Amino acid sequence: MLESITENRIINDLAKRFRRSPLQKNMLHESDSEIIVFNNTCGGSIAVTIDSISEEIETGLYEDPYLIGWMSVMVNFSDIAASGAEPIGILISEILPAHLSAEYVDRIQEGINDAVLKCGSFVLGGDTNSGEKLILTGCAIGRSSENTYLKRTGCRKSDILYSTGKLGKGNAYAITKLIDKNASPYIYLPEARLKEAAVIKKYASCCMDTSDGLIAALDQLLRLNNCGFKLISDWLSTIEEEAKKTAESIRLPQWLLLAGQHGEFELLFTIPEHIEADFLGETNMSDWKPVKLGVVTDNQTLIINLYDKMVSLDSCKLRNLPFLTEGDINKYLQNLLEYDHELRETATVPG
Amino acid sequence: MLESITENRIINDLAKRFRRSPLQKNMLHESDSEIIVFNNTCGGSIAVTIDSISEEIETGLYEDPYLIGWMSVMVNFSDIAASGAEPIGILISEILPAHLSAEYVDRIQEGINDAVLKCGSFVLGGDTNSGEKLILTGCAIGRSSENTYLKRTGCRKSDILYSTGKLGKGNAYAITKLIDKNASPYIYLPEARLKEAAVIKKYASCCMDTSDGLIAALDQLLRLNNCGFKLISDWLSTIEEEAKKTAESIRLPQWLLLAGQHGEFELLFTIPEHIEADFLGETNMSDWKPVKLGVVTDNQTLIINLYDKMVSLDSCKLRNLPFLTEGDINKYLQNLLEYDHELRETATVPG
Repeated sequence: MLESITENRIINDLAKRFRRSPLQKNMLHESDSEIIVFNNTCGGSIAVTIDSISEEIETGLYEDPYLIGWMSVMVNFSDIAASGAEPIGILISEILPAHLSAEYVDRIQEGINDAVLKCGSFVLGGDTNSGEKLILTGCAIGRSSENTYLKRTGCRKSDILYSTGKLGKGNAYAITKLIDKNASPYIYLPEARLKEAAVIKKYASCCMDTSDGLIAALDQLLRLNNCGFKLISDWLSTIEEEAKKTAESIRLPQWLLLAGQHGEFELLFTIPEHIEADFLGETNMSDWKPVKLGVVTDNQTLIINLYDKMVSLDSCKLRNLPFLTEGDINKYLQNLLEYDHELRETATVPG
Repeated sequence: MLESITENRIINDLAKRFRRSPLQKNMLHESDSEIIVFNNTCGGSIAVTIDSISEEIETGLYEDPYLIGWMSVMVNFSDIAASGAEPIGILISEILPAHLSAEYVDRIQEGINDAVLKCGSFVLGGDTNSGEKLILTGCAIGRSSENTYLKRTGCRKSDILYSTGKLGKGNAYAITKLIDKNASPYIYLPEARLKEAAVIKKYASCCMDTSDGLIAALDQLLRLNNCGFKLISDWLSTIEEEAKKTAESIRLPQWLLLAGQHGEFELLFTIPEHIEADFLGETNMSDWKPVKLGVVTDNQTLIINLYDKMVSLDSCKLRNLPFLTEGDINKYLQNLLEYDHELRETATVPG
């Protein structure tokens, strides 16, 4: 079932030879970071993750060196947050083409530094190489003083689905960079939800970040948990206002802001119904308002109210589209629009 | 003084904005891995390092996908070994161009897997991206049950300089790949010296791996420790036999096998004189024979007996050559040969 998704198949194939460490507490796909417990007697454990920024630079999605530096930190600390860990620090390997100016490189470092400060954390080390293409790889390390972590698995029927913030921001930004270059600039500078994660951790049954957008994340969760999700009828209210305007400006159906695969690095998490009030009680005392998205169901599908019908989305198709269209953004967009048209005409009506 | 070396200047410049973590027990440049102590009360600490394989692929030095996979693991575990840590595992980010065949990618994974098994360790996680250039970045994690680590700093005058094995292997391999492509193949598959590190750790005053060759490592150590090194007169005996043959085949003066900057990933370490006998006593009981290289001196220079004269090597010049010659291997080689000629004619005679 996981293998219906091209990305999962690629990962399984790359990892097929590797034996698992007995110290590792998560299975493949099961967690945004790797959870390693290396000293049971006194709770020595870490969460660790690695992520490269390369495709985003190559496609022109990330052009500003400050953003490139910022993202190399945030994508990694977002995984640390999704695991319910506090950040210890990050190591960054930079492949720097010789033609980059000193100012350009300095802006990358500024982005890295500001992101690390924003996360209250540190650059612990790094590596630098020359190369033809600019690539940044971050490896972030976190820990949990209680020795407990969040995973992508664990949600159950009737748990309530939340995100840390409004959605669609990553895809709105991608529209302005890749589809309509004349669109008004969209400010995209996501922050890893570390502070929120510390609260979420006390209540959530599972957690994952929306690095690939909402629908990709829900698709992965439904495969891992043998569950489904039903989004609230008023899903439009979960999309950020500026993002909506961007979609409008190119006449893109708003729900596609949830389907595109450039995410906003919010955390997606589920709260068991019987402790939802406690959870909301705690968040009410802070300035953070979690966004209610829907509910966990027991049949493995993703339900959304579209065009006044209850639609079961083909999230498998949506997730595999970038591979099918081989990185051609126009072809990708056209496929999305065709699928939207199909839904408009012949929506399936689940039971 | 560190800043006389272009590489150190680049690193200082990249890191200049970053504040250091109070949990980090090493300064910049001071250690092959970053040492993080995050739980003082019960000895929670890790050593962590990141290293990318990109230049070696771009220049054609590493062509065999198995070697590329192998090296992405070994260069990182070698840093873990140089810190006196035991490996916990590694995360690997792979940038895989779409044109690579499934067989080619599989050979990379085989190299990764064999290297990890050889180190008795595990692949903990990873990331995969497509991109124009093949690049592998490893981030290795180690720990020390005693909570103690080795650093590059700490050696003193009259400490004895050793390496874990014979030298010149990395540069001999580079000769066959980059300079004389008709030379008989030179088998290069270095192994991180983790087992030896466990012994070294009990005795050594400092440690660093020879990832950039012997002279680059000694140059860094003399800058960090305000000391010098005098190599044994019979330094030729410290070079591996096959490597000597490769140098002979292109009439390269043998000492340049120590000066070139493609290393062999041996560990370089210093043993205080008064415990040398204990150290050798322990190694005598194993099948490992450490190689005596010389002695630590108190004036900051690197002395070698060359052409029947005691020569003070310009290790600064030697280390900066790759930057000066901008990656042009023939120009680099010519500069090395000119320097050798200069030494032959007008060697300085230190006191």
